[in-house]
Amino acid sequence: MAMNIGIDMMGGDFAPLEAVKGVLEYVNSSSGTHLLLIGDKDAIEKVIPSTLLSDSRISLIHTKDVIGMHEHPTKALKEKPESSIATGFKLLATGKIDSFISAGNTGAMLVGALFSIKALEGVIRPSISTIIPQQNGKTGLLLDVGLNADCKPEQLNQFAIMGSVYAQLMLDIEKPRVGLINVGEEEGKGNLLAQATYPLLKDNKHIHFIGNIEGRDLFMNKADVMVCEGFTGNIILKLAESLFDIATHEQLNNEYFDRFNFETYGGTPVLGVSKPVIVGHGISKAKAFANMIRVSQSMLEKDVLGKMKEALQ
Amino acid sequence: MAMNIGIDMMGGDFAPLEAVKGVLEYVNSSSGTHLLLIGDKDAIEKVIPSTLLSDSRISLIHTKDVIGMHEHPTKALKEKPESSIATGFKLLATGKIDSFISAGNTGAMLVGALFSIKALEGVIRPSISTIIPQQNGKTGLLLDVGLNADCKPEQLNQFAIMGSVYAQLMLDIEKPRVGLINVGEEEGKGNLLAQATYPLLKDNKHIHFIGNIEGRDLFMNKADVMVCEGFTGNIILKLAESLFDIATHEQLNNEYFDRFNFETYGGTPVLGVSKPVIVGHGISKAKAFANMIRVSQSMLEKDVLGKMKEALQ
Repeated sequence: MAMNIGIDMMGGDFAPLEAVKGVLEYVNSSSGTHLLLIGDKDAIEKVIPSTLLSDSRISLIHTKDVIGMHEHPTKALKEKPESSIATGFKLLATGKIDSFISAGNTGAMLVGALFSIKALEGVIRPSISTIIPQQNGKTGLLLDVGLNADCKPEQLNQFAIMGSVYAQLMLDIEKPRVGLINVGEEEGKGNLLAQATYPLLKDNKHIHFIGNIEGRDLFMNKADVMVCEGFTGNIILKLAESLFDIATHEQLNNEYFDRFNFETYGGTPVLGVSKPVIVGHGISKAKAFANMIRVSQSMLEKDVLGKMKEALQ
Repeated sequence: MAMNIGIDMMGGDFAPLEAVKGVLEYVNSSSGTHLLLIGDKDAIEKVIPSTLLSDSRISLIHTKDVIGMHEHPTKALKEKPESSIATGFKLLATGKIDSFISAGNTGAMLVGALFSIKALEGVIRPSISTIIPQQNGKTGLLLDVGLNADCKPEQLNQFAIMGSVYAQLMLDIEKPRVGLINVGEEEGKGNLLAQATYPLLKDNKHIHFIGNIEGRDLFMNKADVMVCEGFTGNIILKLAESLFDIATHEQLNNEYFDRFNFETYGGTPVLGVSKPVIVGHGISKAKAFANMIRVSQSMLEKDVLGKMKEALQ
């Protein structure tokens, strides 16, 4: 399968240099995939090695505008149709690229993913997830982490399905255990949302539901896929991110706490849309960009979104 | 002021021994206060030093029943009226004791606090809070941590007031900064609850509102009083508790992470009820019991709940 992966070269705090370095890292370790570098030609050419520019796997798509990190997403996408992000989504919507990656304005990336390409059939609302380092060395998946601050039970049920497919194919967990994040272990505990979600997950034959999990279980590998609405999930994610800063400040040099350095993972794929869209951290460096391209490639090769669509039927 | 503090000697995993040791620790370092030890006479007498029993500051109230840690709270309180917890609340309701402490069944303690004594005038629902160790050495207060899984904006507004009074009087923070836990910094961010709460906090003249705080700010001393509904708060608290376990397991020996050992703090006062009720951890040891008695004494001396009542008018 010939793949075309689009990368916003202007997104992130270190653009375009770190994006260029990431592309270089990726190209040196892989073959085949065609990368479309979207961004300001002059800015990119200043930092890109000429060998990379003449590589047949690389194309440069010039865009003259950039959406700033703090611009209003919807407004910026409307007013800057020639920005790198807007251009990326145009290419994605018209099939010129198969997936799109950016470490730029998160809101604009989410709005773009929600409105310029289709949600998978039947998906109420797409979701964003994050990897959670588990204390025993394993890796869990938490979703939603902020796209859906208010949710209905049926949405959490879909998150469980999408998360399970992603964990199975992308995290190589054969039968992902799904846990509902809650304030107590027993069925019937929790706020109205959690109470109403529990029976849906219990009856869901597409997933392996293990019941409620509590705050103390999040890092303890009690579940592989941890489901909640985007408000709680976002608080957990950002708290988890701060643990790396604290560990650094306290000079812990601890392997586990080092895994909370989310920059190294790359980005967060938007789940539930028809094509892979990867949203990176603003602070993404070369390794993160290379990882985002790899995740993107892997999602395409394994047809993760197609499998998600099937599981959601 | 003559104070009578009631202590459930049968509550907690190490009852009554650790409670006895805590009482001893407290008595050795203070004067005046009268302690009523509530529990099984035989069990207590087996472990209590005779000097303590003959101390004029100590009275023993015999109760023959105990509510187990995993019993259903409401059912247990009803079916075991002669249990140490039920007896404690009876003494509290009738004014025989001025405050009540237990490390026993949390649910039974909360049900007792909600239904056997009055809520402060105007309080929609009482709340439970926790201390949060801040990375810079300071201490923050988080509430609600689980008593109210679903909240209305007006409740969060009251939590902000109660938390501010508690932080000022008990944590010695002159002008506590109140932060609304949310998914973004700007006003207008968040789920429906947070969006509706923001303007209430902004207009609240009883508090010093500094705006939204995010997950990454929780341990960074951005706010002194951190407000959210009890679902998110409970997840944060239990996640924070697990950090101590992880730090122990990873053998960090780090001063900051050691502060996540919540056993040492004593317990959580129920805020918004008319008399101090302190709910301890099941794993409470001597130090925790002594601390709970001190917190209880201090809350009475400083008339924390009276001040809370004033601030809520």
